[in-house]
Amino acid sequence: MAVALHSNRFRPVFFALGLLLTVLALAETLPAVADLAVGNPDWQAFATAAGATLFVGVVLCLSTYSRRDRLDVRQGFLLTVSSWVVVSLFGALPFQLSALRLDLSDAVFETVSGLTTTGSTILVGLDHLPPGILLWRGLLQWLGGIGIIAMAVLMLPFLRVGGMQLFRMESSDQTEKVVPRSSSFLAGIALVYLGMTLACALAYRLAGMTGFEATVHAMTTVSTGGYSTSDGSIGHFDNALIDWTAILFMTAGSLPFALYIRMLGRRHIPLWRDSQVRFFLSLLAAATLVMTLWLWRADGVAPGEALTLAAFNIVSVVTTTGYATADYGAWGSFPVVLFFMLMAAGGCTGSTAGGLKALRLQIVGIAVREQLHRVLQPRRVLVRMYNGRELGDGIIGSVMLLVLAYLVTVQALTLALTWLGLDPLTSLSGALTAIANVGPGLGPIIGPAGNFSSLPDGAEWLLSGGMLLGRLEFVTVLVVLTPRFWSL
Amino acid sequence: MAVALHSNRFRPVFFALGLLLTVLALAETLPAVADLAVGNPDWQAFATAAGATLFVGVVLCLSTYSRRDRLDVRQGFLLTVSSWVVVSLFGALPFQLSALRLDLSDAVFETVSGLTTTGSTILVGLDHLPPGILLWRGLLQWLGGIGIIAMAVLMLPFLRVGGMQLFRMESSDQTEKVVPRSSSFLAGIALVYLGMTLACALAYRLAGMTGFEATVHAMTTVSTGGYSTSDGSIGHFDNALIDWTAILFMTAGSLPFALYIRMLGRRHIPLWRDSQVRFFLSLLAAATLVMTLWLWRADGVAPGEALTLAAFNIVSVVTTTGYATADYGAWGSFPVVLFFMLMAAGGCTGSTAGGLKALRLQIVGIAVREQLHRVLQPRRVLVRMYNGRELGDGIIGSVMLLVLAYLVTVQALTLALTWLGLDPLTSLSGALTAIANVGPGLGPIIGPAGNFSSLPDGAEWLLSGGMLLGRLEFVTVLVVLTPRFWSL
Repeated sequence: MAVALHSNRFRPVFFALGLLLTVLALAETLPAVADLAVGNPDWQAFATAAGATLFVGVVLCLSTYSRRDRLDVRQGFLLTVSSWVVVSLFGALPFQLSALRLDLSDAVFETVSGLTTTGSTILVGLDHLPPGILLWRGLLQWLGGIGIIAMAVLMLPFLRVGGMQLFRMESSDQTEKVVPRSSSFLAGIALVYLGMTLACALAYRLAGMTGFEATVHAMTTVSTGGYSTSDGSIGHFDNALIDWTAILFMTAGSLPFALYIRMLGRRHIPLWRDSQVRFFLSLLAAATLVMTLWLWRADGVAPGEALTLAAFNIVSVVTTTGYATADYGAWGSFPVVLFFMLMAAGGCTGSTAGGLKALRLQIVGIAVREQLHRVLQPRRVLVRMYNGRELGDGIIGSVMLLVLAYLVTVQALTLALTWLGLDPLTSLSGALTAIANVGPGLGPIIGPAGNFSSLPDGAEWLLSGGMLLGRLEFVTVLVVLTPRFWSL
Repeated sequence: MAVALHSNRFRPVFFALGLLLTVLALAETLPAVADLAVGNPDWQAFATAAGATLFVGVVLCLSTYSRRDRLDVRQGFLLTVSSWVVVSLFGALPFQLSALRLDLSDAVFETVSGLTTTGSTILVGLDHLPPGILLWRGLLQWLGGIGIIAMAVLMLPFLRVGGMQLFRMESSDQTEKVVPRSSSFLAGIALVYLGMTLACALAYRLAGMTGFEATVHAMTTVSTGGYSTSDGSIGHFDNALIDWTAILFMTAGSLPFALYIRMLGRRHIPLWRDSQVRFFLSLLAAATLVMTLWLWRADGVAPGEALTLAAFNIVSVVTTTGYATADYGAWGSFPVVLFFMLMAAGGCTGSTAGGLKALRLQIVGIAVREQLHRVLQPRRVLVRMYNGRELGDGIIGSVMLLVLAYLVTVQALTLALTWLGLDPLTSLSGALTAIANVGPGLGPIIGPAGNFSSLPDGAEWLLSGGMLLGRLEFVTVLVVLTPRFWSL
């Protein structure tokens, strides 16, 4: 950062950070209004946080404003990484200033978990919290969700991270500057996101939630975040209609948002024509089917109830939302291991979901099949196609890099958590749930029926780092940490 | 197989299988002699098994003998896979015919575990078994060990499996037939293996074992197998001199045997100059150091004892031998998770060890570093070097294939074991220990203090398959299972 301030080479990065903080400040006024409406003194915490955030944001914007620059690759990396860190720190202010008086590690953990749409929480007694805090948690996830889509649509293809260069526009191959997508495209995505949230809120309201519950849950469903207004999560409502509403909108939030735009522009529905969507929905269906059979045959649950239970909890985990309607850790050892594996999978690229993502699993599959053929016929040249586009070595290589970075990060984080004294199940599932941005882990402490409040500070910091690493797709962070990045 | 017999295209494969069975039959006479010497009626079981095996072997050899053919690629794959399966089935005969009267799944499990030098056992009460059975278990591992080296030196480079084409000789690039290594090279490897075994036996004898114990343990140490003559494994002797002898020879068995030949041929010692050896020994040293510190600081073990305990159990797991001197599952959650990760690593290529192997971890590391650089500078061309040789895309691709096949196999096997009702820890550690050919798993059932006798038949078959898959480096088996293999 010292380098950056000195040389002024990162001026556009600081300007963009200033803009983001200004938006965050505006968002912080909403919980202030909510608390003021019910006469809760927490409104002052939100007002103070909003003021401070607005001040820093505006100063940054004004002091770095210049005629519109396009970002180069390094500025793109730096902005992507620093924006999540800076927004997390300012977003944590209300938790520290409110009546909750969270310490720094708790406040940052809760904020990072919100913004990354992970949904792990250190708060207990959600049902009795004032509306401001509950709304703020919902807003963090909702803003995080659109931030993730924006990052996937604007930055990652350009930074060639995790195979996302597959989504570069043709024109962007010619330049080393970030090519802005058309403003109508970006406005379209924002409108779809907003419309989906409103539809979800309405559906929840009609299914039986209060207006406030419906609003917060809609924000955390569409963003596949998973924060709830109750310790019992969606299970608190015990309402199959609410369960199925959640299933529908969690799935909708995990599909590529760019496709919705294309879908709106044409008459026919091309969703199912997309290879990634097909793969993802098939995975959901297959896992739900297997789990329904297990609950029915092995655990003796009636078939209809088994289907709802299985569908809800599978969709919640695979879309990395993290709502729970049951403690699936107690369903037996086959479900536990299956949930472990599904956690790592995640949704589609360009959505709000976390995890490795369907696209990458498919590309790994394509690469594996090709290598197997090469063993027998080393000299044969095969053209690898995905969704009608050719897969170059660069794309396969960058997907492999991400998959390996994922594996190594999960292992390292697990090991670090055991070093702090956590048991193996908590450590591994905690690492996985943080890195894949799911929410709950497994086991009695951080499982779907528990929460993260009893973890030591060190573990909270490690998990906060894991959530950011996962959300930023590892490579983005690794690149910024290489000496080469700063010496170029 | 029907195809094969019909067309006679696999004649050289059947001839080679006949030769292997003949060798196996000769080996089976040794336990017969041992049991005859102590007057145990089991000698008849070994004699019968030897007779049957010899008959089949000789018939196969005579009926398929022709002027010496060189194997083509497909015959190479088929021989590699079928030899381990056929030898496992015939090697299981003594267990079924002896007084133990093992059923088929138990007998095959014990034999596969022996030949693949895994060392998981379903036998309880080893201390009271007659010498024939104990010697046979040792011989299976000893023969398996040299078989593994032969496969790695002769077949895998030629079949381009798991990056082993790095060890192709220059001349072998020109042809599609298996190029025989010089007979002096092969004889050299056999002599080194024999010499190392004798030295190990002598050292064990001097350290306090009986002659019989020293012989059997020498065979299972140098082959990194891990079968013992006692339920207490090496811990039974409670003798630090024996521990350190084992540490030395387990490590020796995990280094590339081809290097020993080069070492003997020259005056200086090039072992440390080999990149893989350096990496592997550094890994052993680092893991031992960390574990010693943990045992000393967290578990309160005296430093000297902690070093012996840590070194022995780390070396035993990383070399995939699987001896135990303590139930490291009870050392705490950090050691448990560390042991999990070390299980997957394994020894060096071209040794008797299992696991992914140091070479592949290094190549993955090189590929990751290159991809990270590519993110920043996509157009820069980097030459990847390993041990003074250039790494082509083909080598990196085939290593990635193996790593991914490994991951998928571990996950699928774990899931299948939980479906059979095993708990998650037993399932995951069982899958991992089988596939990496280590021996003990973790947890109360199959941990270092337990054994595999209580597992259901289905789990035994699955684990036997996992051991073979791991030993054959996955790809070999996958290739033979593709329709393309049979249609070419």
